Amino acid sequence: MADILASLRSLMASQSPPLDALLVPSEDYHQSEYVSARDKRREFVSGFTGSAGLALITKNEARLWTDGRYFLQATQQLSDQWKLMRIGEDPPLDVWMSDNLQKEAAIGIDPWCVSVDTAQRWERAFAKKNQKLVQTSTNLVDEIWKNRPPAEINPAVDHPLEFAGRSVAEKLKALREKLSSEKARGIIITALDEVAWLYNIRGSDVSYSPVVHAFAIVTLNSAFLYVDKRKVSSKVSSSLQANGIEVREYGAVSSDAAMLASNQLDQATGVNFGQNGVCQNDTCDNDLIWVDPASCCYALFSKLDANKVLLQQSPLALAKALKNPVELDGLKNAHIRDGAAVVQYLVWLDKQMQEIYGASGYFLEGEVTSKKIPETMKLTEVSVSDKLEGFRASKEHFRGLSFPTISSVGPNAAIIHYSPQAKTCAELDPNSIYLFDSGAQYLDGTTDITRTVHFGKPSAHEKACYTSVLKGHIALGNARFPNGTNGYSLDILARIPLWRYGLDYRHGTGHGIGSYLNVHEGPHQISFRPQARNVPLQVSMTVTDEPGYYEDGNFGIRLENVLVIKEADTEFNFGDKGYLSFEHITWAPYQIKLIDLSILTPEEIQWLNRYHSKCREILAPSLHKNEMEWLKKATEPHSSFVGHMVAT
Amino acid sequence: MADILASLRSLMASQSPPLDALLVPSEDYHQSEYVSARDKRREFVSGFTGSAGLALITKNEARLWTDGRYFLQATQQLSDQWKLMRIGEDPPLDVWMSDNLQKEAAIGIDPWCVSVDTAQRWERAFAKKNQKLVQTSTNLVDEIWKNRPPAEINPAVDHPLEFAGRSVAEKLKALREKLSSEKARGIIITALDEVAWLYNIRGSDVSYSPVVHAFAIVTLNSAFLYVDKRKVSSKVSSSLQANGIEVREYGAVSSDAAMLASNQLDQATGVNFGQNGVCQNDTCDNDLIWVDPASCCYALFSKLDANKVLLQQSPLALAKALKNPVELDGLKNAHIRDGAAVVQYLVWLDKQMQEIYGASGYFLEGEVTSKKIPETMKLTEVSVSDKLEGFRASKEHFRGLSFPTISSVGPNAAIIHYSPQAKTCAELDPNSIYLFDSGAQYLDGTTDITRTVHFGKPSAHEKACYTSVLKGHIALGNARFPNGTNGYSLDILARIPLWRYGLDYRHGTGHGIGSYLNVHEGPHQISFRPQARNVPLQVSMTVTDEPGYYEDGNFGIRLENVLVIKEADTEFNFGDKGYLSFEHITWAPYQIKLIDLSILTPEEIQWLNRYHSKCREILAPSLHKNEMEWLKKATEPHSSFVGHMVAT
Repeated sequence: MADILASLRSLMASQSPPLDALLVPSEDYHQSEYVSARDKRREFVSGFTGSAGLALITKNEARLWTDGRYFLQATQQLSDQWKLMRIGEDPPLDVWMSDNLQKEAAIGIDPWCVSVDTAQRWERAFAKKNQKLVQTSTNLVDEIWKNRPPAEINPAVDHPLEFAGRSVAEKLKALREKLSSEKARGIIITALDEVAWLYNIRGSDVSYSPVVHAFAIVTLNSAFLYVDKRKVSSKVSSSLQANGIEVREYGAVSSDAAMLASNQLDQATGVNFGQNGVCQNDTCDNDLIWVDPASCCYALFSKLDANKVLLQQSPLALAKALKNPVELDGLKNAHIRDGAAVVQYLVWLDKQMQEIYGASGYFLEGEVTSKKIPETMKLTEVSVSDKLEGFRASKEHFRGLSFPTISSVGPNAAIIHYSPQAKTCAELDPNSIYLFDSGAQYLDGTTDITRTVHFGKPSAHEKACYTSVLKGHIALGNARFPNGTNGYSLDILARIPLWRYGLDYRHGTGHGIGSYLNVHEGPHQISFRPQARNVPLQVSMTVTDEPGYYEDGNFGIRLENVLVIKEADTEFNFGDKGYLSFEHITWAPYQIKLIDLSILTPEEIQWLNRYHSKCREILAPSLHKNEMEWLKKATEPHSSFVGHMVAT
Repeated sequence: MADILASLRSLMASQSPPLDALLVPSEDYHQSEYVSARDKRREFVSGFTGSAGLALITKNEARLWTDGRYFLQATQQLSDQWKLMRIGEDPPLDVWMSDNLQKEAAIGIDPWCVSVDTAQRWERAFAKKNQKLVQTSTNLVDEIWKNRPPAEINPAVDHPLEFAGRSVAEKLKALREKLSSEKARGIIITALDEVAWLYNIRGSDVSYSPVVHAFAIVTLNSAFLYVDKRKVSSKVSSSLQANGIEVREYGAVSSDAAMLASNQLDQATGVNFGQNGVCQNDTCDNDLIWVDPASCCYALFSKLDANKVLLQQSPLALAKALKNPVELDGLKNAHIRDGAAVVQYLVWLDKQMQEIYGASGYFLEGEVTSKKIPETMKLTEVSVSDKLEGFRASKEHFRGLSFPTISSVGPNAAIIHYSPQAKTCAELDPNSIYLFDSGAQYLDGTTDITRTVHFGKPSAHEKACYTSVLKGHIALGNARFPNGTNGYSLDILARIPLWRYGLDYRHGTGHGIGSYLNVHEGPHQISFRPQARNVPLQVSMTVTDEPGYYEDGNFGIRLENVLVIKEADTEFNFGDKGYLSFEHITWAPYQIKLIDLSILTPEEIQWLNRYHSKCREILAPSLHKNEMEWLKKATEPHSSFVGHMVAT
């Protein structure tokens, strides 16, 4: 590790101008959340493996900024050479630079690994002390990275219409209409899931996300895909061609962006001034290049004429979020198979916990019969999550996990983005809460579910916390709201039952989910973060409902279902706005043993009974007899308040 | 009316440059919500009496923009010469100007009647077509306004420490610390309630708000009050003087603002560069003049060097909103007297409705015994609201109403800001809902309460709507939330029970309330409007909780209590943020007859029982025996769900 920093510093000194500091972000050329092994540059230089973090190397120091999900993990993984900067507690990067780096310092960045938004924000901040953000011509980390994993040549595949639901031709037509209406003649698409969605292709260049490393440029008349051509079979190539998409080499995007800027990329442009220089049709006003400042890298943006750039969220973000009926059907079917796998896992785990650990099990609250357990029989966070993956892998259309499974016992469950490692992970414990947050990629949809269970005797406090999380989960999932409502407004519904006791959680409440694409998808979200105000929730969007509570050193609780937004069947329609509601598409029971029924309202109990009854009904065809018997028991209706139930 | 427009147009033409349009806003020189009779210029030119609206007079047209509260009223009051522009439905002013007024048009405005924010926004919008906002040197409306009410010389009075709770010296000290910390050497205070609050003075220049027409300028060393000196008695004058406040004529603020800008107002300034031009102390950095862009008029701002202005919300807005313990005691006491008046009014009205109209009354749901009612005995919206004022006027410290009483029967209750007029108002109706929203100014506090009642047989639909409004009112009032939460987040709590049925209301949910000052007070609010995000709710703020539902042509429902924000007594304190809750300080019963108990949760019924029991306890000392008997009946505990009540 010392060698890495020394090599980097010597390389920094040799640059022109010599660099006083180097920034190494987590993201790849596409600003992806999950990146391929060879793009884990920040992990390579710092040793920190979390998904989010920014490394800074100066002549004498090395610092890493990361957020609350990773404070503990970063502390464990960073060597003495590094100092952890806690976002929200320590000064942010720009303030630190201004306070600690000399005037006129040169700060290097690979412009392919930083978004326009971020780079411009840094430039403004650094300018206060005449510090400069310097775009390096090569990635300095790559230069010193011996044994950097080679680029894999994974095939790109067609994503057929039976799953995609909408043809490339339709998608391109809608995109071009959007370009026209915004006076743009072209768009550079850099987000991997947007490229995959638009061209109906999928790949396996990145773990957990079935995407291809590729860029796209679309103009009013042409469309290009920039990708390592070795990944494109003749079959895929001809279906792309049939849609008027030209395949070019990945690296060509750079010069093509410049050609696009000078209006030379696209000879058959709809913009036609004719020989006399007079506009020949109604497209002459279209002279902007559309770039999404949050996902487009600074390198490509720098090829453009800044005065002719439309810096605005990509129109594909919303288009992709509004699922079509085929995608919705696929998502629902995938969630049924996924729910069956989760129930099978719970049945299996319940049996193991009783047989191996002498636990009272999923249903009973009893003391543990202490047993001597041979080492080979012990269950660990990793071994059980492998079993869970096995249940999923047996299902139709399974293509892999959608993110690293969070399988966490006791105190580990309080680490929100905990990722157990085979060698160091904890053993299952019948006296502790067990939280698992997991999902899969199926050809017809992406899944994401969290359940929290206890196989022994939970404490009254654990029950109270579980029940408060459940109340928030139900309150959000049951909400009806007018069109125009955003996820910032709804977020509080999931927190109010926790706030009542002075409890809370340090993460958002919901994210969109892809259709056999990224498990985290925008542009909407349910969160206290300001971005959640930008996009109202709309019919046919997906969103998760996942409140939690985490008690450091003790336990963690999270409950997560995927919801689909639909028109609500309200009695009235005040203001003619149209009202919306959520449809749950995740099917797995909540553990009644962990619920303090006395703090549920009659309506909440009624909802629980109905949801459980639907679980039985929907999962029945996918389960074996013993599994179904277990599920019946797990989903028995509860009768408290039944006599007073409120008609809805 | 025709004369007015003709005179104005001829005056517009005679200006230099000649004006193509003239804007006449509702506000006075202080951007007040309620203005004195002689400041009702927009009402004078248009005939529209609502509190909010903007008139535009061009060479050929006259248009009035107003919001949804006033569409109906404006339709009735505007003559044929005027066209109503519905905010939210018709194009906004700036768009209309750009689309309909010629390029380079000159648009006149009295710069004393428009805020910096608004004027700058207009200037930017008008610039698109090279249109210009022209500051007129006089107010053109005043010039043609024959019989304009003369300026009244109402005395300014001391607001004693026993009610103010904090001395002028303390307030000035805190203000100057704030100036220093923001690098300001002075502040121009233009909001009437801020001047009154800072200098602990009150007056009667404006109906409903006990303020004095005055400006203030405060520097690090000096303080000025700009007011018609005839209003200042020698007693008040000497107490101002004792606090180092110099009284100057109202009109002098203009030249003094210019002096302030050139650093000549304040000889004894703390900023001291000494003879050699070298800074002699640590205040030399303080060279800004603080101006609140939302309340300061453009005229005063124009006297300053724009590069040396700190355009930021006045520090007095928050200081005034955080009530001190004396103010909180006063507010609570005022609300007890006010609640007693409201109960006395209900007792009286209940008796009248039964005796005069043969109604079944407040408690029973029965048919009306039809009666012939002599004209002289008839009750009207105005006559009963006069009676209500009478009950209030008999209370200690009463100084007048805090806003025009909304006393509305049936369909009139659906007009959110309905203001009944003696000649045209409706008669009370035992078959209709009756809504009253009213409040008073007491020396120790300002009140604001709304109740909705029915003296006959309400429909099931009216009950369902009342109950949904009540559920929202309870949900918001019962919320606990961490420090940092804003009123935008909380707003949804009051709407969710209505949204469930597709119902909603087109106004915010809560506003701050003054201490013997304005009934509407910022800077915080509970609303879906973006401004509600700007200020988190904090301990010792006041805020109303007033959801509603309005069915055009049928009825309206609103329930309003005043709440005080306090520290919540939560079991835990996750994140060490500190949790907050609300204390209700308004005391008057909700009408049980209008509640559909079957859609209340056990917790809601429990809350209602507790609130009603406190009403009895708190109001008992202020009521006569018969009134107390009525109140006991109105606040009887309800036992549905009692056996299942949830411990809290």
